[in-house]
This record gives sequence, C-alpha cells and structure tokens, in this order.
Amino acid sequence: MSLYGDYDSQNIFAKIIRGEMPCYKLYEDDDVLVFLDLFPQSFGHTLVIPKRAEARNLLEIDADNLTKLTLAVQKVARVLADELQPDGVQIAQFNGAPAGQTVFHIHMHVIPRFTEQGLQNHASGKADPAELEKLQARLVKRFQSA
Amino acid sequence: MSLYGDYDSQNIFAKIIRGEMPCYKLYEDDDVLVFLDLFPQSFGHTLVIPKRAEARNLLEIDADNLTKLTLAVQKVARVLADELQPDGVQIAQFNGAPAGQTVFHIHMHVIPRFTEQGLQNHASGKADPAELEKLQARLVKRFQSA
Repeated sequence: MSLYGDYDSQNIFAKIIRGEMPCYKLYEDDDVLVFLDLFPQSFGHTLVIPKRAEARNLLEIDADNLTKLTLAVQKVARVLADELQPDGVQIAQFNGAPAGQTVFHIHMHVIPRFTEQGLQNHASGKADPAELEKLQARLVKRFQSA
Repeated sequence: MSLYGDYDSQNIFAKIIRGEMPCYKLYEDDDVLVFLDLFPQSFGHTLVIPKRAEARNLLEIDADNLTKLTLAVQKVARVLADELQPDGVQIAQFNGAPAGQTVFHIHMHVIPRFTEQGLQNHASGKADPAELEKLQARLVKRFQSA
C-alpha cells in the first residue's frame, strides 16, 4: 500500500474547512484551522489542519503549508499550556491507516497530558457537547489574547 | 510543574551533537541531526533533533529552528517510506516527562508502522547493534541519493 494517493475532497476535514460541517473552532486564519477533537484522548485534545493544502499526509504536503501548520501547532501548544496548565503536551501526526490515521486530510494532534491521567483510546468515547462548548469558550478567549 | 525551564547542556543529545557520545547517524547538516533510536518502537524508528537550538521542547524553540526541524522530519519520513516501504508512518513529539519525554533536548520521533505489527513500548528493549548498523548503512545510502 502506498502512502501517496489521491486527495478525496469529501473527507470530513475538507467539509469543515468549507463550512459544510460544524466544528468546535478555537482559531482560524488564512492558512490553518484549529478545533477541538470530538473524541478527545485527554482534556483539551485539539486538532490543527492546513486550509490551503490538498494533502493527505506529511509526505504530500508542500513546504510552505507544512511550515505554517507547524508554527500554528506551536502556538496551540503554548496556548493550551498557558490556559490548561497541563504537566506535558504530546504532538502526534499519523500517516496511513496502519499508523492510526482516520481522516485523510493531514492533521496534527495537540494533546495535553496530566500527571497520573492516562490517555483515552482515540475514538473510544465522544465528548459531552456541553463540556466541549465550555472548553471552546475558554480557549477562544485565550487565543484572542495570545 | 512548568513546561518552561533551563536547558541542561549535559543532556545526552547535546553530547551527541558535540560528538562526545556516539550515535547511529543517518544524516546531518548545519541545522539538524538524524539518527536511529536505540530503543526502537518499530523497525526504522528514527530521531530528528535541531543542532543549533538550546530548547528543551516545542514551547521553547524559535520559529526558524522549528521550521528547519519540521522540514527535516518530512524528508526523513519520505526516505523511510521509500526505503522501508512501511504501511504507515507516525510522527510523535513529547513535551515534559508526563508526556513521555525522557531527554530534554527537543526531538521528533519518526516511526514507521507495519500492518499487523504493534508498537514496542519505548525503552522496553535495546536494539541489536548489528541490526542497527545494517539498517544505518542502508538508510545512509538512501539519504545520500534523496
């Protein structure tokens, strides 16, 4: 199986970028979109995606969009660290289904870690919408002052 | 516990950069160093570190070094995908001990994934030196032609 392939413009993140699907948006600019994961592995689990790159994964994305994506991930990590005061932050990026990728639009996971709290398996449980909304409001405010 | 802190220039990756400790080097330029993980989670598990940034983690590294690091990670992922033909590639980056960080010089893991092969726990077993040497020779050659 090749890691290179055709981009499917009907993937869920493409729909979110086009506004055809909702998300718990935290931050957006011309290049990136930042939103809460619906199946969080920890409190504050956030996704960062490029808006202008039709790339399924790290092998395919161009250098300019990758750079913007990475700098956005750093910003997100800093904002989450400031607001949620975790004990650690994990960054993860999966390429190919056997590596754990489920949506084939490149995305980066920013996962706050709290001492003595393990990680939930991804997609093991959907977060409570009321909790996500509360967290979203809190983080949006922090992004605005970042 | 803050994720920000003083950089300890005696950490093992700083020693590797200065040539005071050996490593199974795959690639090096002015900005980054690429070498095999001694405790691989999968066949081909590779580490990428910045040489010029005295940064413990993603929160602390400057944008220029982070950009160079990320583009190197992409190159490594492509080379490993070409040479080892994995079914997937995972990228991981840990900030803070509770997130799994053990060496406090920022580093990125590039971990090939093979269908039906799980991941080894990190540091669960040291790789056979002869196997690492063989893999190193194979990948060095691929980097030279990349």
